[in-house]
Amino acid sequence: MTTAFEAATAARRIGDGRYAVEIDPTWSVNGIANGGYLLATILRAALADTPHPHPVATSAHFLARPYNGPAEVLVQTLRSGRSVTALRATLVQRDEPRVETLITAATLDPGAEPDWIGVAPAEVAPVDQCVAAGVELPDGTRIPLFEHVDLRLDPATVGWFAGHPAGVLEMRGHVRLTSGDESDPLVLPLAVDALPPTVFGLGMLGWAPTIELTCHVRALPAPGWLVCHLRGRLLQDGWFDEEAEVYDSRGRLVAQSRQLARVNVARKPPRS
Amino acid sequence: MTTAFEAATAARRIGDGRYAVEIDPTWSVNGIANGGYLLATILRAALADTPHPHPVATSAHFLARPYNGPAEVLVQTLRSGRSVTALRATLVQRDEPRVETLITAATLDPGAEPDWIGVAPAEVAPVDQCVAAGVELPDGTRIPLFEHVDLRLDPATVGWFAGHPAGVLEMRGHVRLTSGDESDPLVLPLAVDALPPTVFGLGMLGWAPTIELTCHVRALPAPGWLVCHLRGRLLQDGWFDEEAEVYDSRGRLVAQSRQLARVNVARKPPRS
Repeated sequence: MTTAFEAATAARRIGDGRYAVEIDPTWSVNGIANGGYLLATILRAALADTPHPHPVATSAHFLARPYNGPAEVLVQTLRSGRSVTALRATLVQRDEPRVETLITAATLDPGAEPDWIGVAPAEVAPVDQCVAAGVELPDGTRIPLFEHVDLRLDPATVGWFAGHPAGVLEMRGHVRLTSGDESDPLVLPLAVDALPPTVFGLGMLGWAPTIELTCHVRALPAPGWLVCHLRGRLLQDGWFDEEAEVYDSRGRLVAQSRQLARVNVARKPPRS
Repeated sequence: MTTAFEAATAARRIGDGRYAVEIDPTWSVNGIANGGYLLATILRAALADTPHPHPVATSAHFLARPYNGPAEVLVQTLRSGRSVTALRATLVQRDEPRVETLITAATLDPGAEPDWIGVAPAEVAPVDQCVAAGVELPDGTRIPLFEHVDLRLDPATVGWFAGHPAGVLEMRGHVRLTSGDESDPLVLPLAVDALPPTVFGLGMLGWAPTIELTCHVRALPAPGWLVCHLRGRLLQDGWFDEEAEVYDSRGRLVAQSRQLARVNVARKPPRS
């Protein structure tokens, strides 16, 4: 049985290293495909014919805004090793590269336990104390993505919604697919980019395009909610970084990412 | 005047998008070129003929061990925009790709000040209380790199050298070019990978090959020492991550990186 997530990210082989995909208009924010959804779609194509199923490192540079509708993913194997496969995969529309990725895939051990792990970040409020993300923002932005992705935001990081931003580059919440599909590792690149941009925490509501995003899949997620911690270190000169850590329902660190993004609205002083 | 760093990373245009470089055997660890040195060399070629001088995001996947000696860097422009240029650059030797990179370059404002910055990590001990990195490790590994890179390690993170690892994925120190060359932004990709691997902090001395490394250049460094903070979150299944933050002598965050690396030695219990 094909899940809704698998259907929306499906890739059909149409030639040597060429895959047809369809950018689904409903996995979008304000009409533009979500970056994590694009990554999952590219990965579905790139990993279709490789011996290593898990994208341990995926680096994506976002070149041009993709359109909704048909696209091609061009895949080239850069290294074919015993323990890893390295690939280049490009999302192309109208003869133009839209997203360029480098992927290193391996086979993770489902039973692996940490040899060492650092101190976990601040706890996220329990799901039942969190705020369900709606499909419309205060400024009218439509987010049909949240019909597919069930996102519950920690109340400590949603003050911006009511005009009282917390004043820090932080966003925390719980994520799962609304359809209940679980345990697909490609949910992880979706999860790292599913929360509102951390600059919302500074009251900077508006479009914050990702320039580069690298996602590391560290373990295979257990079924259930994923817990997402996002924080940034620096906003300067219109650039900000955003780090995500994703834990599964067993409390295991399953994914990490960092992105560099642009923000084009000015920082407003907090309301008193 | 050409500095020693510029000479070791020099790129000569030999065709359309083709640059000749020379992998200098003295910028190496145990005979193998340092990853940060390779990045700087690739960037020197990739940025030679682009209007945007600063590599704000560089993602590198390390495919095969490079040899010392001649190499080519193949550069392709993926996007040529007003504010950014995106490039693909591949280090090739003997017809095989060795390092594949995606680069987004922009023009940073030298006078930019933070609009927001998070809490700085733990302080690094002052330079005069740090330990100068030698060119030979306890196991006989030769590190000629440290003839070019003056590295002073925080005593709190060098216990492994004497058989008493601190038991955490951390490494901290001060870095500058021995020759005194300063203010070249390509020193930053070198700095993020110049310290010993954080797994040394767990007593796991040995080769820890980088699989993927992404470096963000956030600001142009002031002259003087760079302060480097490295930490990892998770060692599992032979994979570990390593995050670097680099500050300049004015205390400004100038670079960030994260890498995913392999480690092939077992974790030893700490000596009592």
